[in-house]
Amino acid sequence: MNNFMNKDFLLDTETAKRLFHDYCENLPICDYHCHLSPKEIYENKSPKDISELWLKGDHYKWRAMRSCGISEDYCTGGITGKEQFEKFAYTLQYAIGNPLYHWAHIELQKYFGINTPLSAKTADEIYERANKAIADGDFRPQSLIMKSNVKVVCTTDDPADDLKYHKLLKEADDFDCSVLPTFRPEKALNINSDGFGNYMKELEKASNIKINSVDDVIAALEKRADYFDEIGCRVSDHSFDYVPFSPASDAAVEAAFQKAINGQCVSREETDAYKTKVLLALGEKYYNLGWAMEIHIGAMRNNNTAMFNKKGADIGFDSVGDDCIAYPLSRFLDALNVKGRLPKTILFNLNNKDNIVLATMLGNFQGTEAESKIQFGPAWWFLDTMDGMTEQMKALGNLGILGKFIGMETDSRSFTSYGRHDYFRRIMCRLIGRWVEDGWYADDEELLKEIVCGISYNNAMKYFNF
Amino acid sequence: MNNFMNKDFLLDTETAKRLFHDYCENLPICDYHCHLSPKEIYENKSPKDISELWLKGDHYKWRAMRSCGISEDYCTGGITGKEQFEKFAYTLQYAIGNPLYHWAHIELQKYFGINTPLSAKTADEIYERANKAIADGDFRPQSLIMKSNVKVVCTTDDPADDLKYHKLLKEADDFDCSVLPTFRPEKALNINSDGFGNYMKELEKASNIKINSVDDVIAALEKRADYFDEIGCRVSDHSFDYVPFSPASDAAVEAAFQKAINGQCVSREETDAYKTKVLLALGEKYYNLGWAMEIHIGAMRNNNTAMFNKKGADIGFDSVGDDCIAYPLSRFLDALNVKGRLPKTILFNLNNKDNIVLATMLGNFQGTEAESKIQFGPAWWFLDTMDGMTEQMKALGNLGILGKFIGMETDSRSFTSYGRHDYFRRIMCRLIGRWVEDGWYADDEELLKEIVCGISYNNAMKYFNF
Amino acid sequence: MNNFMNKDFLLDTETAKRLFHDYCENLPICDYHCHLSPKEIYENKSPKDISELWLKGDHYKWRAMRSCGISEDYCTGGITGKEQFEKFAYTLQYAIGNPLYHWAHIELQKYFGINTPLSAKTADEIYERANKAIADGDFRPQSLIMKSNVKVVCTTDDPADDLKYHKLLKEADDFDCSVLPTFRPEKALNINSDGFGNYMKELEKASNIKINSVDDVIAALEKRADYFDEIGCRVSDHSFDYVPFSPASDAAVEAAFQKAINGQCVSREETDAYKTKVLLALGEKYYNLGWAMEIHIGAMRNNNTAMFNKKGADIGFDSVGDDCIAYPLSRFLDALNVKGRLPKTILFNLNNKDNIVLATMLGNFQGTEAESKIQFGPAWWFLDTMDGMTEQMKALGNLGILGKFIGMETDSRSFTSYGRHDYFRRIMCRLIGRWVEDGWYADDEELLKEIVCGISYNNAMKYFNF
Repeated sequence: MNNFMNKDFLLDTETAKRLFHDYCENLPICDYHCHLSPKEIYENKSPKDISELWLKGDHYKWRAMRSCGISEDYCTGGITGKEQFEKFAYTLQYAIGNPLYHWAHIELQKYFGINTPLSAKTADEIYERANKAIADGDFRPQSLIMKSNVKVVCTTDDPADDLKYHKLLKEADDFDCSVLPTFRPEKALNINSDGFGNYMKELEKASNIKINSVDDVIAALEKRADYFDEIGCRVSDHSFDYVPFSPASDAAVEAAFQKAINGQCVSREETDAYKTKVLLALGEKYYNLGWAMEIHIGAMRNNNTAMFNKKGADIGFDSVGDDCIAYPLSRFLDALNVKGRLPKTILFNLNNKDNIVLATMLGNFQGTEAESKIQFGPAWWFLDTMDGMTEQMKALGNLGILGKFIGMETDSRSFTSYGRHDYFRRIMCRLIGRWVEDGWYADDEELLKEIVCGISYNNAMKYFNF
Repeated sequence: MNNFMNKDFLLDTETAKRLFHDYCENLPICDYHCHLSPKEIYENKSPKDISELWLKGDHYKWRAMRSCGISEDYCTGGITGKEQFEKFAYTLQYAIGNPLYHWAHIELQKYFGINTPLSAKTADEIYERANKAIADGDFRPQSLIMKSNVKVVCTTDDPADDLKYHKLLKEADDFDCSVLPTFRPEKALNINSDGFGNYMKELEKASNIKINSVDDVIAALEKRADYFDEIGCRVSDHSFDYVPFSPASDAAVEAAFQKAINGQCVSREETDAYKTKVLLALGEKYYNLGWAMEIHIGAMRNNNTAMFNKKGADIGFDSVGDDCIAYPLSRFLDALNVKGRLPKTILFNLNNKDNIVLATMLGNFQGTEAESKIQFGPAWWFLDTMDGMTEQMKALGNLGILGKFIGMETDSRSFTSYGRHDYFRRIMCRLIGRWVEDGWYADDEELLKEIVCGISYNNAMKYFNF
Repeated sequence: MNNFMNKDFLLDTETAKRLFHDYCENLPICDYHCHLSPKEIYENKSPKDISELWLKGDHYKWRAMRSCGISEDYCTGGITGKEQFEKFAYTLQYAIGNPLYHWAHIELQKYFGINTPLSAKTADEIYERANKAIADGDFRPQSLIMKSNVKVVCTTDDPADDLKYHKLLKEADDFDCSVLPTFRPEKALNINSDGFGNYMKELEKASNIKINSVDDVIAALEKRADYFDEIGCRVSDHSFDYVPFSPASDAAVEAAFQKAINGQCVSREETDAYKTKVLLALGEKYYNLGWAMEIHIGAMRNNNTAMFNKKGADIGFDSVGDDCIAYPLSRFLDALNVKGRLPKTILFNLNNKDNIVLATMLGNFQGTEAESKIQFGPAWWFLDTMDGMTEQMKALGNLGILGKFIGMETDSRSFTSYGRHDYFRRIMCRLIGRWVEDGWYADDEELLKEIVCGISYNNAMKYFNF
C-alpha cells in the first residue's frame, strides 16, 4: 500500500522516480495554451477564500457537483463560501477515478500545505485551514505563477483585443514570466453566429480597415496578426467542432459573407465555404510569421439550451463530438502544404477515437522548419486525465516520435492549475520509466534525461522559439 | 501462479479482496434490466439437463460454436443433450479471453459445485456431474433466482402485453423477489417494419383506444404506461441502432404514419420524424411517472439474411454498429430538457468508441431529481467483458462520478446468469482496490464501503425508487 | 530492471517464457501476406550495406526521420550510406515507444549479432559492424528467408502479372520456401483512377479476353484467377479506403464502366456501383476456388500532394481514415453469404476504433468451411505495434475465438522483417501467459501448447490449406 498521493505519486518504478525527481520536477513551466485573464494577472488581486479561488469560475467542478444532484444554486447560482465548499467536498468523495480528485489534492498540497484527503468529513477543517493559508500567505495571481516557476503563459485572445494588459505586464516589476497573447479569430470565422455583424464592426475598429468583403476580413485579420506578433504572439488557436474544410469559388464565399453581414441566415455549406477561405489565408499568414497554429477538434458546446439561455457559454454543458475528421483535416493541411505555406501545427483531439487519426496525420506533413513540425497536442479537456494522457503519449510513441513532443499546457482558467504540469510529468515519467525497466528502451541516462526534460519543457521552448 | 478461478478470482490486491469479500460478495442483486420470461419464472419448471439449461436459448454460446466451424445442427438445429454439450466444451477450450469462458466456470462453481475446468477432455465427466446436480437439486427458475439473492428483476415487455405473469408472481408464495415489467414500445416505433399495421391492432385492443393518428398512438401508449406503472414498472427501454432524432412538422409525421398504416413504404426520414415525435411524447410521460428511460445504442441486428429467413431474430447474428451518435443524442435529450421534462435516463453504448461520448453527454443534462440523474449504463452485450466493464468504469471515473454509478444488470435470458453480477463486482473491486493501493484515492474504509456497496446494489435501489 | 531486449524481451511471466521458448520460438513462419518482390527473391542479390538493406525502400523509417525534421535528401532524396544511417540512428533514439525501435534492435540482434542499442552515439560503430557482417555473411534474400525458417511467403500481385518469378522460384534449388502469388485486382476496381483505361489493355493482353463490358472485365479476372490458382495462389487481397458497397442495376454499372473506359470522369456513386458488382463476382470466384479473401480497410493514402507529385505512392505519406464501415461491410458480406458463396474472409482494420466492429462482424457469417472461417486479421501497418497487437488479440479474445486465430503476417517489403513474427509471438505469449498466471484460463499445458502453436503457425497452414 503506497501512501496517499505522496511524493512518489504515480511513480511506480525506480526509473520513474529518478527521472521525475532528478530531472523534471523542478524544471520551469512553458504554459503555451491557457484561458487565464491577462487583466486578472495584471490586477493581481488576492482571492477572498478557497471557495472563490476554486469555485467561482471552474466549470469542471460545477459539472461534477451537478452529477451528484447538487442544485445550480451551489454552482453558478450565487451560494458561495463554506456551504458551497461543503457541497464540493461531498462531490469530490464520490469522484473516484476523476482527475478533479487528483488536481484538488495536488493543489491542496502544493499551495496550501494540506495533506488531508478532502471529503464531507474533512470539509470544514480544510476550509478553515485553506482560508488561513490564504489570509496569511500570498495567493495573488502573479505570486502563484512565479511560485509555480512558469516562464511563459500564452493567453487566448480575440483579434480585436487591444492587448493592453499584455503590454502592461511586459513592464510589470518583479514579475518574471512572459504573458503572451494567442490569436484566436473564432468570432471572425463564425459567420453563422448571431453576433457576427457586430463583431465585424469591432474588427473594423481594431484594424482600422473598412470591412465590405471577405478580402477585407482577411486583410483586417492579417493586420491584427501583425499587431499580435509585435506584442509577442507566436501561436494562433482554432476550435473546430467538426473540420469545416470545403473549398468554394470566391464568388460563392463572397455571397455567403454578404448574406451574413446583412443579417440573413447562412447554411452549413456557406459557413464552411467561408471558413475554408479565411482559414487558408490565415494559415499562410501564420506560416509567414513563423507562428504555430493550434487546432482543437471535437468539442460539442452548449448542449443544454435551458442553461445556455440562462447563463451563457463555458459553464460546463459541453461534451465530446464524434464526427469523422480524417479526410477534411487531411485536405485542409494539404491545401496549405501544397503551396509551401503550412505553418507549424498542433493538432488536438477531444475524442480519443481520433488519437490514431491525428497521430498518423502528423507524418503526412512534417517538414524541416522544426523537429516534429506537426505536433500531436497533449490530451486536452475531457482527455486531460491519467488515461487520456497515457493513451495520447502511447499513440504518439507508437506512431510518431515521442522524444520530440512539446508536452503539456494547462488549458485552464485557474491560477492554481499548474499542478497539472506536475501531474503530466509524473504520468510521462511513469510511462517511460516502465518502458526502460521492462527493457523496452535502452537504459541510457543521457538520452532519457534529454527526452524527459524535452517533453517537460525544452521541446516547447525550442518549438515556439520562446 | 494463482489457482484457476478461485475465491480471489480477479482480486489482485488486498484491498480488492477486502472490499469484495467483506462488503460486496453477499449483497443482494437488483437486476434492473434483463430478458427473462415472466411466464417461465411463474411456471417454474426444472430443466431436463445442462444442455437444456445452457444451450437451448443462448445465442452467445451458439455464436462461439459457429466460430469454431461447428454446424448449425448443434446450435439451433435440434441436436441436443450430450453431443451438443461436447461441441460446446470443445468450443470453450479455444475461447481464451472470452467472458463466456468465465461465465461458464462461475456457473459451474456457483450452481453445480464443479471446479474442474471444462474442455473437450472433461466434457463427458462434467456433463454427468452437472446432470446429477440438476436431478438431485433444485434448478427451477424461482429457486435459482432466490439462491442468487435477487431482490428485483425487471423483465422487458411490450406495451400490449397484459402482464398476467407479473401479477401472478406478485402473489406467488415463497418467492421473495419483485418481478417488475419494463415498458419497451419498440414495435410502436418501428413504423418501417412489416408488422407495424398488425401491431397497431394489438395496441388498440390492449389500450381500448381506436388508433387513427399519431396522437392516438401516443394516447394508447400513455394509457399502457399508466397500466405498467400500476403493476410496478419503473423503467422503460429503447433500442436505437442509430439515434433517430429528426423533428418534423406534425403534418409530416401524420402523413408518414398514414402511409405506414396503409401498408406503404416509409423512408428513413419519415421513420425518424415519426419516431422523434413519439419518443418526445414518451419521454415526457416517463418524466411524469418518475420512471427511468433506458436507451441502448448501437446494435446492428440480423446481419445474416439467410439465417434470419430460416430462424428469425435474436439467435446470434448481431454485431456492433459505428454510426455517429453525439449530435442527435444531444438534441434529443435537450429537446426534453428544455421543456423541463427529461426523465432519469440511462445511456448504454455497444461500441466502445462511444464511451467518451456518453460519459461526457451525462454532464450536460444532470438534475436534482436523482444523484447522477443521467447515468452511463454498464458495459452491455458485446462490451460485457472484463475489458469492456473496466473501460466503462474508467470512462465514468475519468469523466463523471463513479461513486454514484447504478452498476450492473445481466441483460440475460438465462436463470444462471447471475454470476455476471459476481463477475462485475470483482472487476469493480479490482479497479478500485488498485487505485487505493496505488495511493490514488484515500484509504477511507467508510467511504470505500459506501462506494462499492453503492455500485453493487444500493445506488440502483435508490435511483429507481425500488 | 530487466536487461535491454534480452532473450525474455516482453515475456513477463514464467508461463509466457515457457510458452514462447518451449513451443513458439522455433516454429516455422507462414507469411501469408507481404509485399516482397518475387523478382528480388529470385535474383537473390546481396545488399551493399545496412543503409541499402534498411533505408532504400522502408517508408516507416523515412516517415520517422521526417518527424525529426530531417530533410527528404536523407529519405528518398539520394543521400545514402553512412550519413543516411547516422540520420536514422539520431531519429531512432527519440522513437521511444515506437515498434521501429524494437524492430531495428530485433534485426540487429537476429541477423547481425549486434546487441548494442542504436543511437547517434553508437551509429558509426554499428554501421561498421553491420557492414562487416554483411560483407562476411550471407544477406541474400533467399538466405534471409531460409535463416528465418519461413515456409510460405505470399506476395501481392496484379492479375495481369505473368508470375514468371513465382514459376522460376518453384524450381529454384536449395530454396525451401513456397513463394505464392496473391491476387490483388485493385487496378481493375479503380475505375475512377487515371490509369484505368490503360490497365484494361494490360488485362486484355494477360487474359486474352477482349474487354468491352463489365462482364468482360469479370471474365478476364476470373480467367486470371484460374491462372493464379494453378501457380499456387490461395489468397486474394483488397484494400478499401472506405467500404464501397452500393448495389446498382447492371445497366447503371455498365454505363459507369463505359464512361470510365472512354476517359470520362466517374462519380463516387458510379465508382461504388461498379466496384460492388465486380467485387461480388470476385467473391463468388474466390469461394469456388476455395481461396481466402483478405480485406484491408481504412488506409487514407497519398495525403501529401506535393510529395505524391514528386515521388509517387507508398513512400510514407499515408495515414488512418475514420469512415463508418459497419453497415456497408455487413451488407457486402451478407450479399455473398445469402447466395452461399461467401469465401473464407480475413478482415483487417487500420483504425483501432473498428476493432469491435470487425471482431463482432465475424460472428455474423461463420461457416463450416473452416474453423473461424471469417477471421479478424492481425494488427496491421499503423496498428502493428505492441498496443495494436495486444488490443486486436484482446478484442478477438473477448468477442470471438482467439484459439482459432491465424496469427501474424509481416505485410512487409523487407527481407529482415521476419523479426516481426518473433515480436508478435512474444506479445501473444505475454498476453496468454498473464491470463494463465492470473487464474483466468486453466493451466492445461496440452491445450495451451495447441493454442499458442496454432496462433503462431498451425492455424494459418490449416486455414489456407498450404
